[in-house]
Amino acid sequence: MTSKATNRIVHPTGEIALIALIREHTRARAGTRSSRHLRLGIGDDCAILTPPRGHELLVTTDFSLETRHFRRSSGDAWHSPQSIGHRTLARGLSDIAAMGGKPLAAFLSLALPKSIARKPIWLNGFFDGLLTLAAAYNTPLAGGDTSESPSDHILADVLLLGSAPKGRALRRSTAKPGDTLYVTGSLGGAATELSTLSTKTKRPPSLFPISYSLLPASPHLFPQPRLAVGQALLRRRLATACIDISDGLSTDLAHLCEESRVAARIHTDALPLHPLTRSLTPAAALHAALHGGEDYELLFTADSATRVPRSIAGVRITPIGTIVTRHQSRHQVTLVEANGHPTELLPQGWQHLS
Amino acid sequence: MTSKATNRIVHPTGEIALIALIREHTRARAGTRSSRHLRLGIGDDCAILTPPRGHELLVTTDFSLETRHFRRSSGDAWHSPQSIGHRTLARGLSDIAAMGGKPLAAFLSLALPKSIARKPIWLNGFFDGLLTLAAAYNTPLAGGDTSESPSDHILADVLLLGSAPKGRALRRSTAKPGDTLYVTGSLGGAATELSTLSTKTKRPPSLFPISYSLLPASPHLFPQPRLAVGQALLRRRLATACIDISDGLSTDLAHLCEESRVAARIHTDALPLHPLTRSLTPAAALHAALHGGEDYELLFTADSATRVPRSIAGVRITPIGTIVTRHQSRHQVTLVEANGHPTELLPQGWQHLS
Repeated sequence: MTSKATNRIVHPTGEIALIALIREHTRARAGTRSSRHLRLGIGDDCAILTPPRGHELLVTTDFSLETRHFRRSSGDAWHSPQSIGHRTLARGLSDIAAMGGKPLAAFLSLALPKSIARKPIWLNGFFDGLLTLAAAYNTPLAGGDTSESPSDHILADVLLLGSAPKGRALRRSTAKPGDTLYVTGSLGGAATELSTLSTKTKRPPSLFPISYSLLPASPHLFPQPRLAVGQALLRRRLATACIDISDGLSTDLAHLCEESRVAARIHTDALPLHPLTRSLTPAAALHAALHGGEDYELLFTADSATRVPRSIAGVRITPIGTIVTRHQSRHQVTLVEANGHPTELLPQGWQHLS
Repeated sequence: MTSKATNRIVHPTGEIALIALIREHTRARAGTRSSRHLRLGIGDDCAILTPPRGHELLVTTDFSLETRHFRRSSGDAWHSPQSIGHRTLARGLSDIAAMGGKPLAAFLSLALPKSIARKPIWLNGFFDGLLTLAAAYNTPLAGGDTSESPSDHILADVLLLGSAPKGRALRRSTAKPGDTLYVTGSLGGAATELSTLSTKTKRPPSLFPISYSLLPASPHLFPQPRLAVGQALLRRRLATACIDISDGLSTDLAHLCEESRVAARIHTDALPLHPLTRSLTPAAALHAALHGGEDYELLFTADSATRVPRSIAGVRITPIGTIVTRHQSRHQVTLVEANGHPTELLPQGWQHLS
């Protein structure tokens, strides 16, 4: 939409029609078209932004590629266009949340197969999902790019810009031995829901009212990025380090330990399991909580002397373990089972290209 | 590389190997790994940047999708990995140039088919092309995302962040009737070179030495974004409006007229044809100059009283016409032929999804 994607003048179909559709959708939703930090949105070679004074800029980009990150719905199994739009934006918002930041603007690069580019129902659903979430967090859609997809796959890449007070963004590299480990919300819900999607038959329409994105019951289809929690952790100086759990607890905790050069011990008993995991065997529920990706909760550390509330911005906060020095521990991450038996927890979450 | 793509710990192949390769390449080239404005690069949920004080932020994203924007070389016809890497970054740099900005950082989202992900020769060539150009303009590669491609196509999306003094970025919407129209460099070279690529046989290796990206003779394979010219236009307050010619003169001049609510007259005789077009018939050369995309020159306007030099930063500057009011002109863009005959110039440049 910036640059190549702006104001195609030639043809009434194709890219111009798509841009017009996006403009219509952003016009219809407060907060998705402009903000005081966005000086120039869709319509020039670049968008122009002025980050808040005294803040630094946070930048993250995330692919959402058909078959890799979602499957187009067929007979209402898999992902509805609303879910795809929502998830496409949620990934980046969760990265901003993990730094304790506020979103400034989103940019969408979208390549569509011809079959989809002419399907207003799909496109309207996609932008409905994406912009309903954007509106909930006052994130204007400020530009991007469009293209025809080289294959029959929908390809999206979302750039999220955010801001945090200078020098205060939460990082994953600053956990200290002795810190307590916490997670927000609950774990394993997204993986559990995902496992049911392929077998799902037609959903009742009442499941997707206007406010679908606020339903807590759909952790995979409509994950809620923990922006308010991240911002509170930063503002109230509660956290020493933070990362989002997008790749699964085992993998993201390993990232945090690696970057902070520490080790960690977590307790099976302490893990807050998502209610959806009750449909699974206890072992499967534990596996989903430890290794299931895309819960988009925050994993953070706090000094053991810090009084961390049990809930922040309405989201439950659960202590699940402690940070130890590397030489105190045989393993990078140790899982202490209910019977007190310690085992090594190897990262088994999401890994692309492997 | 920010977020999902950072520091995969698990497997020695796949995404970690790719990130390691990128780190190796950026380490080898001054200016592509860090800068004083990049506080945190590859390795956390987000990258952190501090734009220069008193400046505003420029943002642009550009897809580079196999078959839509390039074709993988086969038998040395089409695009070498170096050219693909160079072009992937050049598109965004040209957008920054068109605003008169300085690049701050680039972010690369890259999805590779399995066959390519395991091919160090291709990957090394790609990053060589991309980072040689990045180094030439002191643009650190600060993050991005990686994934396996859902098809056999290479998919890239590049985000460029830049900066310009507050309120002074050049726009396409500010041309005034009476202004003179100028282009940088020459036109039609990229289209002419592109038309020869499909028939090309093995290139002599001497065509691609270390400094390949500085060769002016390869306007399609190794386009040179006009950053120094754009920055001079802004700094010396020469231009009233500016756009890059990525979609072809006829299309981008129509964009400029549309956004500025003006009309334009340009003169066939005045168009600076690229030397490569000499291999074409005069009519084909003119067609390439008017409608051939991807020249990545700048099209700008200046007040008629402004003395615009004949060359800026070593690049030729050519007056090609004038801006007029909409009611002075029957057409949005009028082409005045050598014999003085005026005709309507319709945008016939690049248009996706049509």
